[in-house]
Amino acid sequence: MTRVYNFSAGPSMLPLPVLEKAAAELVCREGSGMSVTEMSHRSPDFEPIIKKAEADLRTLMNIPDSYAVLFLQGGASTQFAAVPLNLMPEGGKADYIVSGQFSGKAYKEAQKFGDAAEIASSKADNFVYVPRVERGDLREGTSYLHICFNNTVYGTRFNYIPDTGDVPLVADMSSCILSEPVDVTRFAVIYAGAQKNMAPAGLTVVIVRRDLLGRSRPGTPTMLDWKTMADNGSMYNTPPCFAIYMAGLVYEWLLSLGGLGEMKKLNEKKAGLLYDYLDGQSYYTAPVRKEHRSMMNVTFVTGNAELDARFASEAAAAGLKNLKGHRSVGGMRASIYNAMPYEGVGKLVAFMDAFAKNNPKA
Amino acid sequence: MTRVYNFSAGPSMLPLPVLEKAAAELVCREGSGMSVTEMSHRSPDFEPIIKKAEADLRTLMNIPDSYAVLFLQGGASTQFAAVPLNLMPEGGKADYIVSGQFSGKAYKEAQKFGDAAEIASSKADNFVYVPRVERGDLREGTSYLHICFNNTVYGTRFNYIPDTGDVPLVADMSSCILSEPVDVTRFAVIYAGAQKNMAPAGLTVVIVRRDLLGRSRPGTPTMLDWKTMADNGSMYNTPPCFAIYMAGLVYEWLLSLGGLGEMKKLNEKKAGLLYDYLDGQSYYTAPVRKEHRSMMNVTFVTGNAELDARFASEAAAAGLKNLKGHRSVGGMRASIYNAMPYEGVGKLVAFMDAFAKNNPKA
Repeated sequence: MTRVYNFSAGPSMLPLPVLEKAAAELVCREGSGMSVTEMSHRSPDFEPIIKKAEADLRTLMNIPDSYAVLFLQGGASTQFAAVPLNLMPEGGKADYIVSGQFSGKAYKEAQKFGDAAEIASSKADNFVYVPRVERGDLREGTSYLHICFNNTVYGTRFNYIPDTGDVPLVADMSSCILSEPVDVTRFAVIYAGAQKNMAPAGLTVVIVRRDLLGRSRPGTPTMLDWKTMADNGSMYNTPPCFAIYMAGLVYEWLLSLGGLGEMKKLNEKKAGLLYDYLDGQSYYTAPVRKEHRSMMNVTFVTGNAELDARFASEAAAAGLKNLKGHRSVGGMRASIYNAMPYEGVGKLVAFMDAFAKNNPKA
Repeated sequence: MTRVYNFSAGPSMLPLPVLEKAAAELVCREGSGMSVTEMSHRSPDFEPIIKKAEADLRTLMNIPDSYAVLFLQGGASTQFAAVPLNLMPEGGKADYIVSGQFSGKAYKEAQKFGDAAEIASSKADNFVYVPRVERGDLREGTSYLHICFNNTVYGTRFNYIPDTGDVPLVADMSSCILSEPVDVTRFAVIYAGAQKNMAPAGLTVVIVRRDLLGRSRPGTPTMLDWKTMADNGSMYNTPPCFAIYMAGLVYEWLLSLGGLGEMKKLNEKKAGLLYDYLDGQSYYTAPVRKEHRSMMNVTFVTGNAELDARFASEAAAAGLKNLKGHRSVGGMRASIYNAMPYEGVGKLVAFMDAFAKNNPKA
């Protein structure tokens, strides 16, 4: 069977060479006599895999030694609790920018643990832009500022890094990590579910400044305590070995392409193709403000729910799958992460153009 | 390269037909045009996979509808916190039997959340047996009794199910789940990390009586609240899709063998071969009391640390890997989970016999 172009927001496409290598090794990996899925995490078969994955991620993102890199389970949703449990003392405060669905969830979860405040939100405008926050907007005594750097559901992204001064900046980068270079030192914590741009679902990467470790409040579940995880090299318990191995293959693939600078160029080219098409016609509308357009998730609508549904259905039949917008938003969304080839975006644009011609609006 | 016999305590061997099927589908699964690792968890490609996995697990274990089946992340270690957070109210009590390393960890974690007590322990005897607890041994007002049904590190197992009356019985079955039939209705909660007998690491199965849902205490991280997970069919957030798919393949394999009754016969035959050999010689000692011998993890020692090390090393060279005992115990441990073929145990016994002859004790 031919592989489709999969525009899913996550889990999403993985690079074909990565899948082919993993498939070739799935029954028996050279040198070990077993599948990576069967390896003891504390064995000499697996240890080089996790060590190389961490080293390659550090190279790709230029992560200084002053940051720990953790390979965890539980998704960004688990980090929504881990962030306040590790950074906000009891009776403390934390500030949130709510720029979409997941930043809203992170904010709601933090309210369980203390005085979390939404200091800016674009909700009133249906999240079509990202609010601007300056240092002076932070509350006195806040433990951190939390942002979601790319909003998967609405297709927006931060086009700036908030200047928080001495206040730790925490960013959920689930849907944009590794899509372009980012200055890690501007952040106190970066976390990301792996299933969009990095690996199969089941792995969460946390990059945390080491001086912030060891502050978890009493009653923090051990598995949510970053220090425990850092002290044990992400192996306090059994880590998600296969997903870590797959992430490692993705890191190798990115390095072979030339790193994140090259990846950014490719992503700009892909997103440019789609946005340029959208800007040059009037059948589809792209609701997001231009300056906050995501490079990873491109949202558009026909303005007619019936046409939207037909679009997604006919696109799927043409081998362009999962273009339906998020269930809370409707319309269409093309997620064009690192592993989506330029050719796939080209086919999408051609399909969009043909669909518009074949389905004139009344 | 030839596949070895992998005696790792976990992650551990998976059935060869399961690995072969997963390998054949890893780049592109028939009918979907993509890898399972790339499927949106909310797509019609993935939904039948998780639904069938749950249905097959229910069939295999004869799980009544009055129990929810959850596919989670985080390992048993995360459940060490989730159990008290979901079952022990603030200011409440919980009773623990400490029969090995992981039950000790579970007990320690529960102390973070309330009055957890070790009501029985075999620690003074180096965990070579499993303590017997009767209903009258439980503390008045305790919220539950927690046990670890099979002790991976020491190679012991419960040969009885404690009668707790109306007090919920919670069992960590990470290293014995699916090894034999078990009467689920005797338990309030059964949980298990998948990486020993079920799937690659990164998946945790929780089987919980539905009437116990909705009792989580304030401040429980949403991702640790069983009710949230049950209400969302394990898809509150992105589940570990590939590990669930692999678990599903293992469930199909077990059903094709005839189910857990047949699996138990095979496991008894495998464990019998090894224990019979141990009982018929004097070179190796098996420290565990006979009535508490695990069918899954068989521990033995030569009584000489140098010989033990040589044993593990020479066995690995002969294609019998990961026989070194747990780092906290020493000696040897052969984990012979469902996927270990009878032939592998036969080769181990032959190796043990040859090693004893070639390495006489002084």
